[in-house]
Amino acid sequence: MNKSDSAEYLARKRFFDQLLTVYGRKPVLEALQEKGVKVHRLHLAESNKSAPILDEIISLAEAKGAEVLYHDRKALSRISKNSKQDQGVAVDLVCAGYGEYKDFLANPPRKNFELLALDGITNPQNLGMIIRSACAGEIDGILLPKQGNAKIDPLVIKASAGTLFKARLLRCDNLAEALKDFQNELPDNQCNIYGLSSHADYKIGDSLPQGANIFVLGNETDGVSKEVSQLCDKMLAIPMNNGVESLNVAVTASLLAFRKVMAG
Amino acid sequence: MNKSDSAEYLARKRFFDQLLTVYGRKPVLEALQEKGVKVHRLHLAESNKSAPILDEIISLAEAKGAEVLYHDRKALSRISKNSKQDQGVAVDLVCAGYGEYKDFLANPPRKNFELLALDGITNPQNLGMIIRSACAGEIDGILLPKQGNAKIDPLVIKASAGTLFKARLLRCDNLAEALKDFQNELPDNQCNIYGLSSHADYKIGDSLPQGANIFVLGNETDGVSKEVSQLCDKMLAIPMNNGVESLNVAVTASLLAFRKVMAG
Repeated sequence: MNKSDSAEYLARKRFFDQLLTVYGRKPVLEALQEKGVKVHRLHLAESNKSAPILDEIISLAEAKGAEVLYHDRKALSRISKNSKQDQGVAVDLVCAGYGEYKDFLANPPRKNFELLALDGITNPQNLGMIIRSACAGEIDGILLPKQGNAKIDPLVIKASAGTLFKARLLRCDNLAEALKDFQNELPDNQCNIYGLSSHADYKIGDSLPQGANIFVLGNETDGVSKEVSQLCDKMLAIPMNNGVESLNVAVTASLLAFRKVMAG
Repeated sequence: MNKSDSAEYLARKRFFDQLLTVYGRKPVLEALQEKGVKVHRLHLAESNKSAPILDEIISLAEAKGAEVLYHDRKALSRISKNSKQDQGVAVDLVCAGYGEYKDFLANPPRKNFELLALDGITNPQNLGMIIRSACAGEIDGILLPKQGNAKIDPLVIKASAGTLFKARLLRCDNLAEALKDFQNELPDNQCNIYGLSSHADYKIGDSLPQGANIFVLGNETDGVSKEVSQLCDKMLAIPMNNGVESLNVAVTASLLAFRKVMAG
């Protein structure tokens, strides 16, 4: 590849990395109704019978300048990746904050950035609430592995209160590999990795070393996985009163995202 | 009433104020399975057919030293106050933290106490999460009006992760009246009342005046009611990034409960 081909390739790759495919009639309609959401393509099954909600979806997509494509049922299934629930409709949204973690790593928005990393958040409401709080708070992005967490579905979109479409979501294939890259590939800075655990001796109020921070949030029942725990510099607890054993994981995420805001 | 009659009356009143009636077979079973929950009475409908879950409920209640009473269907409805969902079972739990706000007002646990006040939290999951975070954090109690918020039901119990049975819940008939009492009846201290609102100019990181604090959390859609807003000394916002319009109300409650813990 010559230089301009390569630049074009990277720009195209980055564009496609930003696409989030949402399926199902109501979820697609609601996504299209969000202000500020850009739409690349609307995909419809040729076999759809006409329905008022489809007319509304098509007119909203066209108003946003999207291409409208018709497919046979099999091709649509390949796009939605969920033929049981797509109801003959899928849409590719352009999410400005959606991308690969390597792009973030190559060009972080600030030196001492802070990330959340999700290691098995299986409850869609928790995932949506985490995205909402991270987007509103002082978090530069969410490291979201492609496997092991709740899928981006209508419940996640609803719990995120629309922030899903603008939050900085950094996709990775494998969380442990991505965390190792953050530990090894930041030339000018240290990246501290903390796993959250109710049982940890080290408390969040204790002073943290300088550098960028990644806070790993584990599964609702089992906590941070063994493989990821071993990569953490420290496990951190949030001190609790009255013998309460744990906090909701979305609450924990929110406390991390707003800890400097609340201190004033 | 002579002095000892009156003392006995007050002790009895305080005991009955602590009772929380839970109904329905699964909720009752789960409540009885919570460690540390004391049980006053188990109420059963005489018309119940025998069932393994009832045997389990009865044996757990007896193990906790509860009185087991049988009633006709009508009498049981009066106890559960929900004949459609009680499934012939109700239990009176003794919740040490459950009581009337006037008792708290007469004898606050510390001078600069902090309370949450709930003004129309209708989503049971939000209510449960608020109770969980308040109990774990630095909150001395939750002012909970008898009307206008979600009823204490199985969803609330579940989202509270068992903390419902030990949290300090201060019941009141009318929130505005209770807030006025806090403003007027604390002889030695000032009580500041803050309503949370995304639109407020005053930010949570700004310094708050000395005194006890009550933070009012409003309805998920409409915010703090007009009547209660007028009693607030100030409306407070939590600053947010990326144009996010609001936080989940249980997240807001958690940030307030932990703001000093997180600052270290």
